[in-house]
Amino acid sequence: MFNNRVKISQLLTWEPAQQEVTVMGWVRTFRNNQFIALNDGSTNTNLQVVVELGKFDEALLKRITTSAALKIRGVVIPSLGKGQKLEVKADSIEILGDSDPEKYPLQPKKHSLEFLRDIAHLRFRTNTFASVFRIRHSLAFAVHKFFHERGFLYLHTPIVTASDAEGAGEMFRVTTLPFDNPPRNEDGSINFKEDFFGRSTNLTVSGQLEGELGATALGEIYTFGPTFRAENSNTTRHLAEFWMIEPEMAFCDLEDNMNLAEAFIKYIIRYAMEHNKEDIEFLASRLAEEEKQLPADKRSEMGLVEKLEFVVNNDFERITYTEAIDILLQSTPYKKKKFQYEVKWGVDMQSEHERYLVEKHFKKPVIVTNYPKEFKAFYMRLNDDNKTVAAMDILAPGIGEIVGGSQREERLSVLEARMKEMNIPAEELWWYLDTRRFGTVPHAGFGLGFERMVQFVTGMGNIRDVIAFPRAPKTAEF
Amino acid sequence: MFNNRVKISQLLTWEPAQQEVTVMGWVRTFRNNQFIALNDGSTNTNLQVVVELGKFDEALLKRITTSAALKIRGVVIPSLGKGQKLEVKADSIEILGDSDPEKYPLQPKKHSLEFLRDIAHLRFRTNTFASVFRIRHSLAFAVHKFFHERGFLYLHTPIVTASDAEGAGEMFRVTTLPFDNPPRNEDGSINFKEDFFGRSTNLTVSGQLEGELGATALGEIYTFGPTFRAENSNTTRHLAEFWMIEPEMAFCDLEDNMNLAEAFIKYIIRYAMEHNKEDIEFLASRLAEEEKQLPADKRSEMGLVEKLEFVVNNDFERITYTEAIDILLQSTPYKKKKFQYEVKWGVDMQSEHERYLVEKHFKKPVIVTNYPKEFKAFYMRLNDDNKTVAAMDILAPGIGEIVGGSQREERLSVLEARMKEMNIPAEELWWYLDTRRFGTVPHAGFGLGFERMVQFVTGMGNIRDVIAFPRAPKTAEF
Repeated sequence: MFNNRVKISQLLTWEPAQQEVTVMGWVRTFRNNQFIALNDGSTNTNLQVVVELGKFDEALLKRITTSAALKIRGVVIPSLGKGQKLEVKADSIEILGDSDPEKYPLQPKKHSLEFLRDIAHLRFRTNTFASVFRIRHSLAFAVHKFFHERGFLYLHTPIVTASDAEGAGEMFRVTTLPFDNPPRNEDGSINFKEDFFGRSTNLTVSGQLEGELGATALGEIYTFGPTFRAENSNTTRHLAEFWMIEPEMAFCDLEDNMNLAEAFIKYIIRYAMEHNKEDIEFLASRLAEEEKQLPADKRSEMGLVEKLEFVVNNDFERITYTEAIDILLQSTPYKKKKFQYEVKWGVDMQSEHERYLVEKHFKKPVIVTNYPKEFKAFYMRLNDDNKTVAAMDILAPGIGEIVGGSQREERLSVLEARMKEMNIPAEELWWYLDTRRFGTVPHAGFGLGFERMVQFVTGMGNIRDVIAFPRAPKTAEF
Repeated sequence: MFNNRVKISQLLTWEPAQQEVTVMGWVRTFRNNQFIALNDGSTNTNLQVVVELGKFDEALLKRITTSAALKIRGVVIPSLGKGQKLEVKADSIEILGDSDPEKYPLQPKKHSLEFLRDIAHLRFRTNTFASVFRIRHSLAFAVHKFFHERGFLYLHTPIVTASDAEGAGEMFRVTTLPFDNPPRNEDGSINFKEDFFGRSTNLTVSGQLEGELGATALGEIYTFGPTFRAENSNTTRHLAEFWMIEPEMAFCDLEDNMNLAEAFIKYIIRYAMEHNKEDIEFLASRLAEEEKQLPADKRSEMGLVEKLEFVVNNDFERITYTEAIDILLQSTPYKKKKFQYEVKWGVDMQSEHERYLVEKHFKKPVIVTNYPKEFKAFYMRLNDDNKTVAAMDILAPGIGEIVGGSQREERLSVLEARMKEMNIPAEELWWYLDTRRFGTVPHAGFGLGFERMVQFVTGMGNIRDVIAFPRAPKTAEF
């Protein structure tokens, strides 16, 4: 057994009383041949290890360089230094792994986020990314905890699929056929019957349709898995591979759906605020520092912590699409022709419009409901006006759309008519329609892009900095 | 707001005292125009709803058929029937969705598992599959809880990858290139620089290598995500898409790894036993019923519940590969030439050998360690004998290999030599080798196939019956 260490995050909660202890970690700094700042990934607060002068070989001390891995036995004593309650006086120091300071890419100085993206395999070793990934963990755990406590079942919907759930965008093909001489039908088209799955298959863009199958039997389910978009978007808000959470509830209408989504978002943010206080505060000061570089009018009105507290403690605004358009038509930027895109009932809102509503007009998260059916998916429930559907989007400050959901069309004949209108092949979705044939129920659900939520809570500006190894156009390293 | 129902699983814990209540669910049976057995997916125990004679329209009563969806308001009263404490006397009955009994594929009779696989979108509505998926949820939640409590971070490793972690098997290509006239290099080969990710990419077979990057900075991480094998295996134990859990721990050797894996397996089984008692007992009797059809010598010695209790309450056996081979060479089936495959030091064990060790010799889970390096992956730590590696496989009764793990080779020069021996291209894995260059540490990890664990706990014989929508050769429906 090798692992008899105490994690530094735990050790830092002890009362120092000469306890013998073993710690292991990586050197952040080594000052005056006397003070090792040791980090093991459990917290950004380094453990101070005191090396008595003359007690250890010079040859050993020379190897205590940034990022060298050490195993240290010692005793826990009160610290005289400020800002720390305790330190460890070393009795023995073992070098587990050297690190050549000339070659180590992460120098103890500030690196740009772009540079760190190129060495994503090492960026976990910085305070910024260690905080981001500890918060990401907490948010993920809170997702499971929230739904588990409410009796939702975690359903693993398929990643490889033959159906395009929403017509939601371009898809990645999954295949074992060779590009050279692929099998062909008589008419020259590719014979996908010869492909691994006996048909043409893609990476899923959403688990929703399968989620509905689960909900209309098990009651309430949620998914939390990877989804994919083969869109050539090189923005700070898009990934080709991202994780999505999709709850789906039987016996549920649009209002229930909004209530759940709002409670859910508040719950997971609150969980991270309670369990990752230190990390959030670290990222808040990082962000404040970053914003100092910006002109005054580009800076956020609220710091990260205030923003999160504000979201958690205030009701989300709820308005219809029609009301949203009215507000935009009355707005100063509209009147001054500052909007780039058209504002008109029946036309989808663009990011600039959503930002105006959220960041300028309401200054809080906004749930927009009842969009025109023309630009929403076939499965959304048609409202009695025959023009709008029971959709809801949640827009968050600085992030934009973070949730998209709807009550689902449970009426077979209405659904079939919509599918026909929109050229969705009913025969491919026979199984989906079966849920409307046999004991259909009002039901609803939504999807939350997990990385956007992590961005929101960490304040990181680029979505590629909140997932371990981002996948984007021309980007699949590691 | 539509959802003011009480879930049946909750309602059944109440003391009946004339409480007014709304319940919603699907009809399982309707006896004598008087007793509705209602199910909402929260439990297999149906709620009995009593319909007073003459109180409701005949036309309404006719629509109360198997699988029709109902909303019922009524009062909770003590039940006179046996086996149930309470029932609901209906004040109002609303048909949410009809179900034509002539067309509904799930009749109230026993269906074969094969038939149910063809209607996987409806099989959640059977007791067997509702139990399986409630248990699957509990196991998944227990996975997160176990690691969270120990300070492991949940890391989402990439699904689309350019690297083949283990050379572990055939892979699915992920591409947006067209089969007709794909871009080609001058030499006629396909120009994958034109593909979406700017290179040739596949679906991951394991998140381990990326997991190691996380662990050697954050300390302890785990993954829980989908993995893929493009193998043409039509067995009861293989899927093309399955979920895997892969913890990875810095400062950890093989023994620590075994201790963690054993504690982990016991924890999640115990969690399901405590939280899904009713479901496990239901599946236990289902299995006992099924086994009655078998000849006496093919039946299990233990029932499902006893088997789980036995695993949870006993230490796993720990033996080396060398000891395992010795036991096999001394065994009756070997001496009577009953083994189909060769038994010899240096040759990998086959399923028949593993089953003998687990089911006949030790009659409990067995951890086999220190396999010959020849048939193990390049990243496993070379033992001092230069012949074996610090690998461990956990073999479980009835399932076979459920965990594969190892201490990782942390010594750069040894690792590089092994990679050269095995033709693993070092330049593609530069980032992996960096962790050995800069502060390398002893570390270890393992992978657990989640579906096999669900099989073990539910007693389901076919792995396609423990995942919602199985993916296998020629199988990608739903």
